[in-house]
Amino acid sequence: MVKGFVFMKVHKFIMPEVIFGSGSIKQIGESCLRLGARKVFIVTDPKVILAGWVDSIINSCKKANLSYHVFSELTSNPKDYEVKNGVQQYIASECDAIVGVGGGSAIDVAKAIAIVATNGGEINDYKGVDKITKPLPPLIMVATTAGSGSEVSQFSIILDSKNKVKLTIISKSLIPDIAIIDPETLMTKSSLLTATTGLDVLTHAIESYVSVASTPLTEVHALNSIKLVSKYLRPSVGSQLNKKAKEKMAMASLQAGLAFSNAILGAVHAMSHAIGGRYLLPHGDINAILLPYVIEYNYVATPKRFLDIAHVLNENNEQISTLTAGEFIVNYIKQLSKDIDAPQRLGEFGLSKKDADIVSEYALDDACMITNPRHVTADAIKDIFIRAL
Amino acid sequence: MVKGFVFMKVHKFIMPEVIFGSGSIKQIGESCLRLGARKVFIVTDPKVILAGWVDSIINSCKKANLSYHVFSELTSNPKDYEVKNGVQQYIASECDAIVGVGGGSAIDVAKAIAIVATNGGEINDYKGVDKITKPLPPLIMVATTAGSGSEVSQFSIILDSKNKVKLTIISKSLIPDIAIIDPETLMTKSSLLTATTGLDVLTHAIESYVSVASTPLTEVHALNSIKLVSKYLRPSVGSQLNKKAKEKMAMASLQAGLAFSNAILGAVHAMSHAIGGRYLLPHGDINAILLPYVIEYNYVATPKRFLDIAHVLNENNEQISTLTAGEFIVNYIKQLSKDIDAPQRLGEFGLSKKDADIVSEYALDDACMITNPRHVTADAIKDIFIRAL
Repeated sequence: MVKGFVFMKVHKFIMPEVIFGSGSIKQIGESCLRLGARKVFIVTDPKVILAGWVDSIINSCKKANLSYHVFSELTSNPKDYEVKNGVQQYIASECDAIVGVGGGSAIDVAKAIAIVATNGGEINDYKGVDKITKPLPPLIMVATTAGSGSEVSQFSIILDSKNKVKLTIISKSLIPDIAIIDPETLMTKSSLLTATTGLDVLTHAIESYVSVASTPLTEVHALNSIKLVSKYLRPSVGSQLNKKAKEKMAMASLQAGLAFSNAILGAVHAMSHAIGGRYLLPHGDINAILLPYVIEYNYVATPKRFLDIAHVLNENNEQISTLTAGEFIVNYIKQLSKDIDAPQRLGEFGLSKKDADIVSEYALDDACMITNPRHVTADAIKDIFIRAL
Repeated sequence: MVKGFVFMKVHKFIMPEVIFGSGSIKQIGESCLRLGARKVFIVTDPKVILAGWVDSIINSCKKANLSYHVFSELTSNPKDYEVKNGVQQYIASECDAIVGVGGGSAIDVAKAIAIVATNGGEINDYKGVDKITKPLPPLIMVATTAGSGSEVSQFSIILDSKNKVKLTIISKSLIPDIAIIDPETLMTKSSLLTATTGLDVLTHAIESYVSVASTPLTEVHALNSIKLVSKYLRPSVGSQLNKKAKEKMAMASLQAGLAFSNAILGAVHAMSHAIGGRYLLPHGDINAILLPYVIEYNYVATPKRFLDIAHVLNENNEQISTLTAGEFIVNYIKQLSKDIDAPQRLGEFGLSKKDADIVSEYALDDACMITNPRHVTADAIKDIFIRAL
């Protein structure tokens, strides 16, 4: 699979309407009205409620004379039974639009509720690409983590709790109608969450840039996102009050989301879905650890692409060529990760060599593996996994 | 009006689904079906029919079992009475979707027909911002000029034939559902049209980049568009068979369109609408002539923005500062324009000093003037006009 115009003769790009900026969360009521809503189903998690952001949203809905129902019974690595519960509440509450508020978990559950409420069955029925046939209710997503990119993407990731496998659901219908990104919401995140979600953004940007499905429209966003992360992730972790850094990281997350929603991802995400689903570990952390090891593996497949990335990261104007770009990027990411106190090794999460087989099996089956620039074998995954332990 | 986050605290970005690439025109039938169409109203112009592109579209519609009606009674600087005629044919033909195929004229008329057919009245009623209240039929636009950007924009420009004024209509409803951009369609354009539409792309990119409403999302597209024009406009004019150059210019046009649809334009377009409407002159030619003179005027208002543009154009790594960037850009554009045999002076179109007052009057009233980075007076417009004669 070689990247280029031969392969990508015709390509598509699609994104929601975006409302970006400090205070934009207050536009939620008006946005719901504009889409014809009368009663909105607010999907969120307890931490986002505690931080006060759901109150802001309820106030905006009240001002717009909208009724609402809040659903917050969800956890990280959200589960199929949480979706089922949400669907029952959505139907019982007679809502006609869905607002997701939070990080990837809340937004992915909001999308999953929309699917099952209108298309029937169970969320497990929709695993894979383009399985949704009936239109969804209006979807408005408010991102509060600068990480997931789910507010602009055609993805929803839900855990099949029986089989402990993450279901990757991909469909254009999952692209929200409106995405609201308010950098002020990032000021209530812990430094650890800021660090790991920030490295998740970098992972989205890098994986989409080297994806075999990348296009000129995804590339500009991916490279700009990498540039913003390299300049603003450290200061964003450094101070929860640094508004400029929060704003730039919010933009980095948005641009990485636009890139990967349209160019898809690669082996880091395929492995991270396998690990996160099996052992219920935090997505951003696992991505952050795997990224440099996957780059070491992928580098040989597309050195020119990695050279582009190295040029963006190269603040001190070092001499870099296609021979050295891979090493430069790997060292850069490891240093950045240490600087911001992100977890360094999978072993910190209790993983060990004996988990390599099962991770390899599930990772090979993940939809994100299809666009990885280098062909991936079971042995290669095991090797990457063991080196990251 | 100073650009910055204080002014642009909350900003929005919206675009259609984009299908880009060689051969993408064959996806028109499937795209119409996906939007629920049964009979499509194809709006185009006689030259596009002659080049064979409408046949390709009809074939694709036939394959998808769609009926169709072709409307091609339109001219450049399209007129309100042409829209009226189109509306009558749209209603009489009982179509339920509109496909625009061509440059800005065909696409703008397609949009205008959609407005009046569903919202009633006359096209003149919709001048200005957000006057459209009822939903439009599905809109699919196929760009064949790499110039107008109308296939992705929220603009439609129609001539009020009685008053000889261009009506600038701006509304989110005018953003098509799907934009199809097939670089192969550029291979049937004359070199003069390639040159002037290419300089129109550069004008869109530069005006949107220095616009007071520019945002990080419009900026990446504007700068990338400028880079592509600087590299590929000359070879694209040089040979109608240079596929790579056509593809890059198609991408430049698309990205400039995304930028200006969301960041709006400036004094070049305000003046060009005034001149084009009054004297029925070709839009791309007039923009191309005015651009360097407007930059000379605007430069002082935002030298750092112009320095960014100069850096993108600076292929020979010349020393450039905020003091010299304006002059560098002006010289660059004048040289490029000469290299590709574009018209150099308004006098070539029969304009003279006596036209300055009327141009100034209408230009000040154009919606594009609002986002120009420097405050513009009647005297300033007259001065720019006279220097460009």
